Formats: sequence, C-alpha cells, structure tokens
Amino acid sequence: MDANVLKKAIEKFLHEDIGSGDITSEAIIPPEQTGKAEFVAKGTFVVCGMDSVAPAVFTAQNPAITIIHAEKDGAEASPGDILLQATGPVLDLLKAERVALNLVQRLSGIATLTARFVDRVKPLPVKILDTRKTTPGLRMLEKYAVRAGGGHNHRFNLSDGVLIKDNHIEASGSIQKAVSLVRGKIPHTMKIEVEASSMGEVRECLASCVDIIMLDNMDPVTMREAVKLAGGRALLEASGGVTLDNVRQVAETGVDYISIGALTHSAPACDISMRLLGV
Amino acid sequence: MDANVLKKAIEKFLHEDIGSGDITSEAIIPPEQTGKAEFVAKGTFVVCGMDSVAPAVFTAQNPAITIIHAEKDGAEASPGDILLQATGPVLDLLKAERVALNLVQRLSGIATLTARFVDRVKPLPVKILDTRKTTPGLRMLEKYAVRAGGGHNHRFNLSDGVLIKDNHIEASGSIQKAVSLVRGKIPHTMKIEVEASSMGEVRECLASCVDIIMLDNMDPVTMREAVKLAGGRALLEASGGVTLDNVRQVAETGVDYISIGALTHSAPACDISMRLLGV
Amino acid sequence: MDANVLKKAIEKFLHEDIGSGDITSEAIIPPEQTGKAEFVAKGTFVVCGMDSVAPAVFTAQNPAITIIHAEKDGAEASPGDILLQATGPVLDLLKAERVALNLVQRLSGIATLTARFVDRVKPLPVKILDTRKTTPGLRMLEKYAVRAGGGHNHRFNLSDGVLIKDNHIEASGSIQKAVSLVRGKIPHTMKIEVEASSMGEVRECLASCVDIIMLDNMDPVTMREAVKLAGGRALLEASGGVTLDNVRQVAETGVDYISIGALTHSAPACDISMRLLGV
Amino acid sequence: MDANVLKKAIEKFLHEDIGSGDITSEAIIPPEQTGKAEFVAKGTFVVCGMDSVAPAVFTAQNPAITIIHAEKDGAEASPGDILLQATGPVLDLLKAERVALNLVQRLSGIATLTARFVDRVKPLPVKILDTRKTTPGLRMLEKYAVRAGGGHNHRFNLSDGVLIKDNHIEASGSIQKAVSLVRGKIPHTMKIEVEASSMGEVRECLASCVDIIMLDNMDPVTMREAVKLAGGRALLEASGGVTLDNVRQVAETGVDYISIGALTHSAPACDISMRLLGV
Amino acid sequence: MDANVLKKAIEKFLHEDIGSGDITSEAIIPPEQTGKAEFVAKGTFVVCGMDSVAPAVFTAQNPAITIIHAEKDGAEASPGDILLQATGPVLDLLKAERVALNLVQRLSGIATLTARFVDRVKPLPVKILDTRKTTPGLRMLEKYAVRAGGGHNHRFNLSDGVLIKDNHIEASGSIQKAVSLVRGKIPHTMKIEVEASSMGEVRECLASCVDIIMLDNMDPVTMREAVKLAGGRALLEASGGVTLDNVRQVAETGVDYISIGALTHSAPACDISMRLLGV
Amino acid sequence: MDANVLKKAIEKFLHEDIGSGDITSEAIIPPEQTGKAEFVAKGTFVVCGMDSVAPAVFTAQNPAITIIHAEKDGAEASPGDILLQATGPVLDLLKAERVALNLVQRLSGIATLTARFVDRVKPLPVKILDTRKTTPGLRMLEKYAVRAGGGHNHRFNLSDGVLIKDNHIEASGSIQKAVSLVRGKIPHTMKIEVEASSMGEVRECLASCVDIIMLDNMDPVTMREAVKLAGGRALLEASGGVTLDNVRQVAETGVDYISIGALTHSAPACDISMRLLGV
Repeated sequence: MDANVLKKAIEKFLHEDIGSGDITSEAIIPPEQTGKAEFVAKGTFVVCGMDSVAPAVFTAQNPAITIIHAEKDGAEASPGDILLQATGPVLDLLKAERVALNLVQRLSGIATLTARFVDRVKPLPVKILDTRKTTPGLRMLEKYAVRAGGGHNHRFNLSDGVLIKDNHIEASGSIQKAVSLVRGKIPHTMKIEVEASSMGEVRECLASCVDIIMLDNMDPVTMREAVKLAGGRALLEASGGVTLDNVRQVAETGVDYISIGALTHSAPACDISMRLLGV
Repeated sequence: MDANVLKKAIEKFLHEDIGSGDITSEAIIPPEQTGKAEFVAKGTFVVCGMDSVAPAVFTAQNPAITIIHAEKDGAEASPGDILLQATGPVLDLLKAERVALNLVQRLSGIATLTARFVDRVKPLPVKILDTRKTTPGLRMLEKYAVRAGGGHNHRFNLSDGVLIKDNHIEASGSIQKAVSLVRGKIPHTMKIEVEASSMGEVRECLASCVDIIMLDNMDPVTMREAVKLAGGRALLEASGGVTLDNVRQVAETGVDYISIGALTHSAPACDISMRLLGV
Repeated sequence: MDANVLKKAIEKFLHEDIGSGDITSEAIIPPEQTGKAEFVAKGTFVVCGMDSVAPAVFTAQNPAITIIHAEKDGAEASPGDILLQATGPVLDLLKAERVALNLVQRLSGIATLTARFVDRVKPLPVKILDTRKTTPGLRMLEKYAVRAGGGHNHRFNLSDGVLIKDNHIEASGSIQKAVSLVRGKIPHTMKIEVEASSMGEVRECLASCVDIIMLDNMDPVTMREAVKLAGGRALLEASGGVTLDNVRQVAETGVDYISIGALTHSAPACDISMRLLGV
Repeated sequence: MDANVLKKAIEKFLHEDIGSGDITSEAIIPPEQTGKAEFVAKGTFVVCGMDSVAPAVFTAQNPAITIIHAEKDGAEASPGDILLQATGPVLDLLKAERVALNLVQRLSGIATLTARFVDRVKPLPVKILDTRKTTPGLRMLEKYAVRAGGGHNHRFNLSDGVLIKDNHIEASGSIQKAVSLVRGKIPHTMKIEVEASSMGEVRECLASCVDIIMLDNMDPVTMREAVKLAGGRALLEASGGVTLDNVRQVAETGVDYISIGALTHSAPACDISMRLLGV
Repeated sequence: MDANVLKKAIEKFLHEDIGSGDITSEAIIPPEQTGKAEFVAKGTFVVCGMDSVAPAVFTAQNPAITIIHAEKDGAEASPGDILLQATGPVLDLLKAERVALNLVQRLSGIATLTARFVDRVKPLPVKILDTRKTTPGLRMLEKYAVRAGGGHNHRFNLSDGVLIKDNHIEASGSIQKAVSLVRGKIPHTMKIEVEASSMGEVRECLASCVDIIMLDNMDPVTMREAVKLAGGRALLEASGGVTLDNVRQVAETGVDYISIGALTHSAPACDISMRLLGV
Repeated sequence: MDANVLKKAIEKFLHEDIGSGDITSEAIIPPEQTGKAEFVAKGTFVVCGMDSVAPAVFTAQNPAITIIHAEKDGAEASPGDILLQATGPVLDLLKAERVALNLVQRLSGIATLTARFVDRVKPLPVKILDTRKTTPGLRMLEKYAVRAGGGHNHRFNLSDGVLIKDNHIEASGSIQKAVSLVRGKIPHTMKIEVEASSMGEVRECLASCVDIIMLDNMDPVTMREAVKLAGGRALLEASGGVTLDNVRQVAETGVDYISIGALTHSAPACDISMRLLGV
C-alpha cells in the first residue's frame, strides 16, 4: 500500500467529514492548544489500520501531530487495550477523530472476520481470499485488512487479473474459445482463471490449460471430484455461499483457495473509541 | 441528492474497479453487442439505490445504456423480484455490474436495517437517526439509504451542524461557556446540540437554552427523567448502545430521537445478483 | 475555516496566476536569493486575511517562506501600517504576491463594508448577515471576511440550511404544505426559514411554527408590525434593499437579523501593496 | 474562451453552492416538473455572461435545460429587459439560479465599469486595459467581461507575458541587464514590457529596445514628455491611480494604453433577478 | 482500453494545448462554421489511434463532431491514404488538431517499430513485449500501440505484476527467500517473474518454481543453454540490448518472450497531417 | 518552470507507475532500510532533468529522500558519469526509479538532439525553436529540455501566442483581414505571427505589419529572397522539413528562427541507469 496513494484517499475522506471546517471545535478550541489522543479497544478483535491508516489520517489533517504508539496491524486486541497514541493540536485531533475511527473500526472488522475464517480452516493448506465485493472507494484499504487478518487477495480490479465467467463463455461460444481470445491479449505475467459450474466445465478448463478454475457454487462432493480430476494441473478456487459454518467442509475438499465476498461486504465494525487527555 | 455530485462519485468508483480496462471482457465481447441486464433479489429486504444509484452507474459507464425498469427506493423486495432492467452494450453492462451491485447491496442493507429499527418503535413518535459513523467516501449515499429505510439524518458533517461534546465542554470550562462561544459564531439557521451524560448536565443544557440535548449512554430511567425535566424546552436525542433488542425500551422513555451508528457501520449487505439476457 | 480546505483552494489560485512559471522573475531572480516582503496599508480599513489567508498563500507557494508578523484579522488598519512581514526566497515572494494581495484586498474590502453596517446599527441587538451572493469559488473566504468585520453568516449553501421561498410555496400550494414537506426530510439540527412578503404570510409562517421568517422587501412599518405579531415565537430576518443609509431604520424595527447581499457582491477592494526589502 | 474550460470551472461553482443537494427544493419540487426561468434587468448596464456563461451554468446543472433567448454580451440593458429565457426542470433551474446570477451580476458589473472608462476616452486612439488584479479563480471570466465592455486584456498570467518591474531591475542591476536576461529566455512571440517611473528609466527602456513601457504612477506632464521621447519606438502604457475622473486627462497625454485594476477588483455587481413562470 | 479512462486523459491533453482558448482561431472562425477535416498519411507505417484515440479527442473537444471514417488500428498506411474523416465546427476541429495529431503520430510510430520487430522474428513462436519504459502519462496508450503493432504487453505497473530484480534478491539474501516473501503476499492470479543474469541464477529460479525467468543481458549462447535447462518448466523472457539487428538471433535461442524498451522510448513519430475542406 | 506545477505532474506519473503499491518491493524491502541510488550515464549526451526533474520525482515519492549530487541540466555527460546521487529509504528509491529514469532519458534525448541542431548552425545568429509537436502531458518539461539543449521555445499553447495559418487566412478572406481580426482581440503583449508559403504572402504579411512571418516549407532560395524583402521589418521563422542535414543551409538564408518538430516528437531516449548501493 503506497503512502502517497493512501494520503490522497484520506484527504478526500477528511474533506467529506470536515467540510469547510468544524464549526463546533473551531469556536471553542484555540488552535495552539495541544493534547494527547488515545484509541481504546472496546472489544476483542484483530486490529487493522493502527500502524498504517490512522497515523496517515492524523498527519494528513496536520503534519504537526506525532504518533507515539501504534499497535501492529494484525495483532489481537482486548477490551481496554490502548491501540494508538497521538499528540498534537487538540483541534486537529478532534477533526481527524471520526474519519480515523470510521476507518479502523471497519478495517478491524474485516480483519477480524477474515481471521475467524482463517482459524476455521487451520491447519489445512487452503487460503482464504477476498473478492471484488468491496466498498466502492475503499478497495485498497479493505484488501489490506483481509491480509492483516491472515487472508489473501484476489485480483485488484478488472484490469489486473483475468476471470472468464459464464457470460464470457456464452458470448464466445465455448471455454476454449474464450480462453484463446484472452490468452492472445493479456500480459504473460497474468494467469487465466475460468469459472466452472459443472464437472464438464472443469474438464474443458483443464483441456484449455487454464491456470485457475473457480468452482462456482459447487457442492462439496463435486468439488472433491474436481480436485481429484485436476490433480494439480490447475489451482482450484471454491466460490459461492461459503459461511463460517461450512468453510471447514469446503476446505476439506482439497481446494487451494476459498473466496468469500462477506469478508468485505458484511463484516460488522469493531468498537474502538478515542479519548482525549490533557485538554 | 444532486445528480451531478452523484455522477462524480460514481466515476471514481468505476475507475477503481475497471482500472485501464476490463481485460477479460474486452478480449471477448465485441463493443457493438447489445443485451439486457436484470438485477434480481435473492432475499427479502428494503430496496435502496435501484431508481437512483444503479441507473447513474450504468449511464456513467455508457450513456447509451437505457434503464427500462427500476424498483422504487424504499420498496420491499422478495426473492426473485426483478429490481432493475437495463439494455445496452453488453461490454459496458459487464463493466458497470460490480460497482452497481456493490452499491445497491450495501445501501439496501442499510435501508433494511434502518427499517427494522423503525418498525420496532412504531407507532411511537420517535425518529430513528443515523450518525457520522458512515463509510468514508459514501456518506451522502449512506444517509440517503437511511432515509429510504424510514430513518432520518443527523448532521451531514462537522461544518453543517453543531454538536458540543465532553471534550468541548472541558476545554471551555462549562456547558454554558461552550454554548456561548458557539452561539456567537454559527449561522442562525443552525440549532445547537449538546451532549449530556448526567441529569446535572441536562439541567445545564436547559439553562443554556440549547435546542437539542444528546443523552449519552444514559439508562432508560434517567432518560425518562430527562424527558420530564426538559418538558419540551429542548429536543432530546438518545445515543449510545442502542440495539434492535433495546430500541423499543429507549423509545418508550419519550425521547424525540434515537441515533444509531450501527445503521451505517454494521449493516450486512443484501444479496442481489445480475443476470444477462440475450448475450 | 479548515487549513487543508484553504490550502487546496489557494493552490488553484496560484496555478491560475503563475501558469507554468513566472517567465520574468525566473529569468532574473536566482532561486537562492532571499529577502523580506511587507504588506503595507494604503488606506483606512478593517483587515482581513493577514493572519490566515496571506500566510497560507506564501507557504503554499514555498513552505520555506516564514511569516514573521501578521496583523490580526478584524483589526483596524491606517495608512502606512505594516500588515504582514514574510521572509524567504524572493522568487517565491514575487510569485505569490499577486494572489495574496488580490485575496486580502478583496477580503479586507468585505470586512470593512461589513464593519460599516455593523457600526450603523450599534448598540441595537440586531445582527448583520451575509447571503449566498458571494463570488463563485470564494464563498468560504468571503463568509470568513464577513465574520472578521463583525457580521454573521447565513447558511453556507443549499444543502446545509433551509430557506423556503416564493417558488417553493407556489409549487407546493401553501406555506404550511411546503414546511411540512421539508420538515419530514431535513436533519433535526437544522432550523426552517421561510420567506414572507406580507403580514398574511407572516401569520402563516407562525402558524406553521417555522424557526425563522425572512421579511422580504418589507417597508419598516410592516416589519415593525411583524415583530410585534411574532412576539419571539420566530426569529425575524429583514432582507432586500438594505443600504448604509437605511440599515439603522430597518434595525430599529426590532428584527433579529438583517441580511445584505452587497457585503459580498459589491464591496470595493482595499488598497494594500507589497514592498520587497533586501533584494 | 474555450467551452470545456468554462464548463469545468462552472461545475466547481455549482458544487460549492449546491453541496450534496438543495434540501429545500428537493423536498418540495418533483424532479419531473418543468417551467421557464427568466433573467430580468433591474437597472441600466452593459450585459455580460448572458449568451456565454449563464447558458453554460444551466446546461452544466442539467443538459435537459434549453436556452431559448440570451441577450448578446456587450449589449446595453434597461430596467425590465428580459436578458435570458431558459426552460427545463424547475428543480435544476432553481439549483443553478444563484451561481448563474452571481456570475452574470459580477461580469456585467465589470463590463459596465469598463464601458464607462471606454466612453470617457472616446474617440482618442487609446485602449483601456485590465490587470492581474482579478478575483482568484475568475480571471478568464473577468477578462472576458472587460472585452465585453469594450476594453482590452493585459497578459493572462505570469507565464504568458513579460513585465519587468522595479524589483526585477534592482535584482539584476539595471534595466538593460534585466531585459537582456529575459530576452534570452522567452519565446520570440512575446513582447517585453518594462515598468518605468521616471524619464531616466524611460530612456533606459528605449535604449534597450523594449516593446512596451509601463509608465508607473507618472503625472500627465511627464507622461506627455515620455510619449514625445518614445516617438513610436515603444508602446506606452499608463498605470496607477487612474479613475473615471482623471482617465480623460491621462488619455490625452497620447499614451497607447491605460491599465486600470479597479475594472476587476472594485466594480459593483449589477442587479439582475430570476423569475420562474409556470411553476 | 476503457473509453472513460481515455476521455479523462484526453481532456487533460486538450487543456494543456488549448489553455483558456485558441486566441487566433476564436478571433477569426465563427463558432457556427462547419467543415470537414481529414488526416492524411505522409509515409508508410502501421496506423495506431485512428479508430480509437483520434475520434475520442475530437468528441471530447466537441461532441457535435462526427467521425465519418477511421482507419482500423493496426492497418498499413501508404502515403496519401486518408486515415480519418471528421465533420463538425471548424473551430473545434482546429482546436483538437494538434493533440489528435501528436497522439496518433506517436502511437503510429510505436506500432510501426513494434511491427518491424515482430516481422523480424516471424514465424518463430516468440512474442515481442514492451516494458515500463513508457512516456509518463501515456502508458495505457503506448501499450495499446504495442498491441496494434502485433506486440504484447508486459505488466502495466508495479502493482499488477511481480518482477524480482537484483536489488530485491540482494535485499532478501537469495532468490529463494525473495520468491518466498513475495509468494506469501500476492494474489494467486499473478505469476512470479525473476531476473537472472547467470546460469546459476536460472537454476535457482527453477528450484524456486518461478513462473517466468527474465534473462537479463545474456548472450545468445547462454540463453540457448537456459532454454534447454528450463525445458518448459518456466517461461523465458530475453531482455536488454535487443535491436532490430540482433532480435532474430535472440529469437532463435528459443526464448518465449523478448522485451524491448525502445518500442516505447525511442520510436520516431510518423508523419500525418490534417487538412481542412470546405472552410 | 514552477516547482508546484512540476510536483503536481510528477505525482500523477508516480501514480501511473506505482498503482496501489509496488507489490514486489513492498513484500521484500523493509520500509526502514536506507541506501543510496546513483544515476549513471551509459552514453554521451546532453543532460536534462538531473538538477530539476529527477530530484522532484524522488522527493515527491518520499520527502525523506535527500539529493546529494545532481549534474547541471545542459551539461555534457560521458559514459560512466555519475549524474545524480540520492539517499533515503530503498523502498522509495526503487518506487521512484522508473518514473525518474523515463523522464530524464527522454528529456536528455530532447536536449541532446536540440544541441546537435544548435551546433550545426553555429556561429550564425539564428535560433533553433521547438513547436507544439510535444508529447501530450509533457509540454512544459519538453520545452524545458529544448532550452537545456540550447534551443528556444515557440509559444506554449494556443492561448499564449498567435499563429495565423492557411485555414485562418482562407476563413477570413485574406491575410490582412485575419490580422486585423486578431489584432483587435489579443493582449498588446503578444506579437502576431503569420504563416506564408509564397513571396506573395510574405509581401501581404509585411503590408499588414505582422511581427513574425513563418516561412512554411519554402526552399532556401525563396527564403533568402524573403529575408531580403523583409529587411528587418519582421522576424522570419523557417519551418517544415528541417533536418540535421539541411539545417545549416536553412540557417544561411538569414532567417531569424528555425522551428523543428522533431526536437520533441522524434528524439531517441538517452541511456541512463540507476544502481543501488548499500542495500
């Protein structure tokens, strides 16, 4: 995650929340007053954003703010843990508070949910993946949170990874034709992934020498069969309908990856609050 | 929600997901091929974004896409309902798909959760409010979703509403001083809201003639007492720790508003999928 | 006024005036040459922008410029007063000169005109307000200048304050219907203001419990009557045709606010010049 | 004035005034309601912005708005004249109203003041010029207004014209050295203008073969002498302290140009109002 | 290449060349005058940009311009060929001329140079690749031109492809460690490419099961040896010092890819001119 | 070249090349690791961008990078020369490497080609000029490179210089009419240049008192005749078909300027590489 890209995004977020100014705080807090802000965990969760995003929010608001402590992203937090300490102008600590909290609460929520999925499949050699079902505008951050929780990332967007889906196959006539059209155009650094919803399609994929086969909404029995058939000739990714309840069963089929949209679209926020000292 | 503001936001979201192009679809789908896309409900929920956001996504991607049906925002959806129909170039329907779905799934999730809270307090004259605990970059849209679900909006950001919190009170010395400082600076079109966490502070607020008192994490008994004390001299807003389980109890205290951060920070996404016809 | 918002605006202004570079100065002044610039008052006026905007212009052009003196915004200036002193690279002092001067001359003009209105109504308890008749692109700054001159701000824009005007009333059928439609949609932190041009409309406004009534182009006799009728149940704002000659008469009617478009659309610029020392 | 550049600027202005939406109008006016807006002159002035800027504002807000009449920029307006007629969605006519009016009132003010200066010097062959003392963010538009009023433009910014001032001369040691440094660096399409505040400096300028000499705050007698001395070898521009009262006297000295900062920094706005029909 | 991304880039290019307006054409050509523009080949080359970029430039300048003929990208042009025909306002045809020509001349230059390399290696099964040595700001377009010339693209940027170079290997200690660090972090849709400058490093790469080995500045004999050693276990890319003179020799070593920076950093522009008819 | 304008451009270039992050380097290089980068010349050429652009790229990527040596722009480089030394975080040195190299290689290429043209015409008093045939997005930088190579700049864009071409002349009816239309509209700081392709047109230009005549694709004999005819009454610029082989012949005709599109559209990149020390 490049620091300059992060800063640009944060500047937009701060502007959304601050508008032309914080009319309450600017009327009350003198700009020269300094203090210390602390982020405190109000629950048990996997931290994300503390040593990366939150510091960037505070320093984007005012470079005079100093971060004196930040919990490592990916660490476990317990109620009462102090996750971040920052000192500087109180006015800017207050202005940056909500954006920083909104981000770390959401990112920690994603990291925490990811970690729960990862735990369920341990010690199987399967990897938990995110999807493109991220919040518009937050993809880079949410994919970072998935990594903080022990998961792995699928492609970032439509231009840096290939995924041939049913509509593509229909439009071109067959898996083989679709793969051939794509292979002629993409960088050699990219793999080709194709969605398959039946064993017949898995066979076609293997015949076309695709790199990854996405097993779309298959039942575990069929997945197991696909794993056997593939025999290492392609990576297999299970996708669709995976929950904390059934992820272990999916993992045990022997697939290499399990992708889960809920990691980013339905993780509840973690509870973190900010307290100001020495005001 | 202004159409131009919406369009600008959507252009950024599309760029995030499309990057320099959809390498899979562009390799396979000829630009002149047209088809029809349908959004289908996969569950029961309150719709949000169908007659506002999703059409804007499709036409931002390509103005040649025509929306031929869009369910009203705020309507109830049942599994199998067709929520949106759009026709145009298949390539652009596919490119816009994920951004459109990510948005309507999230917004419908917020509308649905809001509607559940609203239902719980019916027919009491209390209003369910959102907070600033929105996803960075999506505040305008998420606040729209709260309205679609029957809720009401709190201030948009730090510059268009006053909320005097504990840190402000501490910094200025007293509620009265904080209120007085703010009153001298803000537009006369704005009300003054002050956070109170005890009956003593409620009394101070009333003495300072504030317009709204936020009862911060008070228990129902104290809230009821505050309502009696205020006697209509100020609007009362309950805030903190409100859930579907306790919202009714809070509502029955007689407060005018209940603000709930979870509406926007923890609503799970609704399940909506897109199918392409005539490819 | 948030420093980051201010900086972004100033960067655009500098770019407008500098283009790809100052071809005259860059050909003549070596980048390492340093000097001192002073802003000098050429008249008597109320200063605005000296301890806020001008320093931001200089440091946006080059963070190596140091502000060693800046007159407080709102102070009175007399001919010959040194209002600002900055040291740093001469090349950047020259590049920033025109933008800084254009801003402080305009803002001081607005503050000065505002102060003249404020003086005329002293010691009456009425407040002088600005309007949305500001220069496009400069609203935040011009509203700041009104405050520096002792005035107060009306709403910032169409999304952070309600003003129901004749067209709205006509479109909805009556004041009561318009108010009711709006009340159902806006944040509870906002007041409702309605334009009234007759005593009949004032009565309707009071019946609809609006917070503020704008008395539109009323003569002083009618305004006085409206004040009596309202009896404190709504704030009253006089608007339309107010000049330095008649503002006292309007103020004496007992209205709470007088809004004056001319503060921002017709204030002549103050005369301030920059001199360079030690070049 | 390029249409795309104009549109980009206007989009920013609309966003400043509309924010996330017009909460009053959006609550009351249905989006499908159409009507007709008219701009009406409330005084006598030279029109600017009616067949250029105002149409661009309305169509930027909504391309569905149609302009059915627009007075030519530069025309004379009398009280009651209908200067513009536009039809389309009432909601968007209302949203665009203030930005459009703020612009045409200001631009007409500049055109009107310019025309008054131009009238005073008729039929002498001198040209009235603007300066860089424009409103930050509005230079292109304000310079257009000067032309609409019969004036001419000085350089647009620091990168597209040369003006060697006292500080440059001091820094380089002499007029001759400054001119020589600049001449070696600038495009051959640009002329060189040098500020002179004494006859000695005028002589130096002529010796250096500069194209234009700016006579800085000279009295008419000296200017007349400079005109005689130059004898057509350089263009002469009078600058500093020119008012409607003394512009004729300055013009009669025989200078080629008179530049006047007040054209853009101190022109009062013209009174123009919008009325809605058929709401 | 997504049309919206292209349009955004072109708007910036037009603004760079047009500034606040075309002062020559705007003074002479009435906006309502229409005409026809033709792009004519002045040499023999491979066309790029005619049915993609140039039309986008003209319609970005004015959507009222119609493209009535556009040569296919990748086609061969001979002197005198009419490559594009567009009709519309002459003023906008002239304003867009230079940006459109600058782009198609450069892109055709790249396509032409690429095609010459591709021809040299026919019918060997090797592919000619570009690099990241593109013109800043034009990468998407230049990579498109490489494809138009029959070449293939390497990764788009640092975030969508892995290339482990000597500095990475040194920093981590060994190829194996570097590969292992990267493998744990990247999406499974990406391949891993490692730079090798000796047979020893090729062996290490094979031992680490990398997907692609970049043979960095190797002589043909060593490359041939590397091909034999790899035996299909990894794709091989030759890189460094490849010219039209030696590309055949490199290709005959049996490598799968040859990457050539000169395709994008040193291709001379093709000669194309625009003529206006019916002015 | 203004530092702020340069920085803005560079931020976009870095974003193009880095995307959301350098996945290879971020996986391997710890952010705290520091080192030293050196740019080394791999050929003989005229340096451009070393003491201006490259430092700006490195500090835009990370202000913690320090430039400890930078060769002057315009200096001659020989193989092995160290042109730049920078120290700081290795991660950021690597991220900025490609953008910095792509820029200095291209700019040095332009400076070198320009210098070769300049050498050919020495010691004649003619100046070598660039054109608007620059790479879209890089005009400011490429024109800077032309100056570094000893050339001079033509106008920057369509709004800061006048060039009346054949289409303008045709549209207005005659050179005289076109000149007259333009003269009435442009700032007095600009010269008027007209394209002439015959002696008849040269005569018309002289009769219209234009400042500069562009001799368009004329043969040397005619140019010589034009020089004689003009006799110093206008500056003469030769344009069209000028190469290193014929530039001396053109120069000897006595024209004042020779403009050459190839300086910016067809200069091959210079070979410069970066090496990292102390990793």
